[in-house]
Amino acid sequence: MAEGIQVFKEALFSSVPIEAIFFTESGERELLGFADVIEQRCQQVFRVSDEVIMYLTDTVNPQGILMVLPFLHQEDLSAVEERGGPLVFLDQVRDPGNMGTLMRVADAAGVKALLVSERSADIYNPKVVRASAGSLVHLPLFIEMDLKTVADRLRKKGYTIVATATQGDLTFWDYEWSSNTMVIMGNEAWGIPEEDLELADVKVSIPIFGRAESLNVAAAAALILYEIRRKNPV
Amino acid sequence: MAEGIQVFKEALFSSVPIEAIFFTESGERELLGFADVIEQRCQQVFRVSDEVIMYLTDTVNPQGILMVLPFLHQEDLSAVEERGGPLVFLDQVRDPGNMGTLMRVADAAGVKALLVSERSADIYNPKVVRASAGSLVHLPLFIEMDLKTVADRLRKKGYTIVATATQGDLTFWDYEWSSNTMVIMGNEAWGIPEEDLELADVKVSIPIFGRAESLNVAAAAALILYEIRRKNPV
Repeated sequence: MAEGIQVFKEALFSSVPIEAIFFTESGERELLGFADVIEQRCQQVFRVSDEVIMYLTDTVNPQGILMVLPFLHQEDLSAVEERGGPLVFLDQVRDPGNMGTLMRVADAAGVKALLVSERSADIYNPKVVRASAGSLVHLPLFIEMDLKTVADRLRKKGYTIVATATQGDLTFWDYEWSSNTMVIMGNEAWGIPEEDLELADVKVSIPIFGRAESLNVAAAAALILYEIRRKNPV
Repeated sequence: MAEGIQVFKEALFSSVPIEAIFFTESGERELLGFADVIEQRCQQVFRVSDEVIMYLTDTVNPQGILMVLPFLHQEDLSAVEERGGPLVFLDQVRDPGNMGTLMRVADAAGVKALLVSERSADIYNPKVVRASAGSLVHLPLFIEMDLKTVADRLRKKGYTIVATATQGDLTFWDYEWSSNTMVIMGNEAWGIPEEDLELADVKVSIPIFGRAESLNVAAAAALILYEIRRKNPV
């Protein structure tokens, strides 16, 4: 279930089938001008009361538009492997807001797919959907991924596996990023577990200039992923 | 009021006077080893029940440690002006989570002060405090700032005022950032209002490579502020 006009527009002009749309009177006003596309793209259309929307969502101030989308994650990594380009692996990122923001950042930086480990936030959590601001439907997503399996497989295709760590071999500025890189981003509180760090070919750090202990995981991802782009102009 | 062991440690080893500390039985276990410093640094110490902490905080799962700190924001920009170095101006950033994360990012990037406009989130909102992960007590803060007044004043001290905009004069990679820059970061939904954009000397954009419409404001700040550092090594 995805809420709000922003995700709605993203889904409408994507290839994702929209199983159903629910909207309230106030939601309907935002949908003016979309009537034709809604008819074409939405399998079921329901005009409902505010109470129904509030019952269906977990939000205190629901936005009056709710869509039911199919599960979006994919199963087969082959196409991603063949296409190449930067990938992100989320290693037990637990906070749904962080995960959604990470999706948005990865999308903006032109990442080719997001791989999510077990014991991470649920990619379909409403807070993830909201924070992703539509990027959930843009980005190829893989869930319950095993880091070792994925790392071994991608390495055979010429990928480098890079971990972000407080103690890195070098800074993200000094590292010569190649486009075929999978970046591991770790948990908000404890980072990347030691045994997972050992699966990386390189450990890269982000320098801290002030007194903060570390960066928020989505901000760190923005720095790393834009650095990959900078060193691999499209 | 600031919650949790992380902010507690930051405050304890800062110069901020701690007016009071409340802790529960579970909170007390985390405070083991800090007894001497608590006695020195905290004017009042209260051991309370879980119910009291839940009443005092807005959190569903309170962390068992709560501090009362004085207001932290400053009134006089003179010291900041004289010291120089990068500054951030938040122009109606409304989401407390974003604001707290922005504080953490600004702190990590070695920003010298954070200036907050009117109609922004309250810097003392508990969600700001939590998301700032202690950076609230590190970073000189100014609130209810008027952009025009501040821009005029800083420009006289040799500062450049740079706005982040979707339509920039050049990208943040190509711009020759000087250390004495004040960066304006805009509202999550509508960016920087037209009349405020006109107060900037330069408009700089962050390129978007995928299908995301824009970046989260804290992620955008990370890119900009680290770029200033990169071009002005300390």
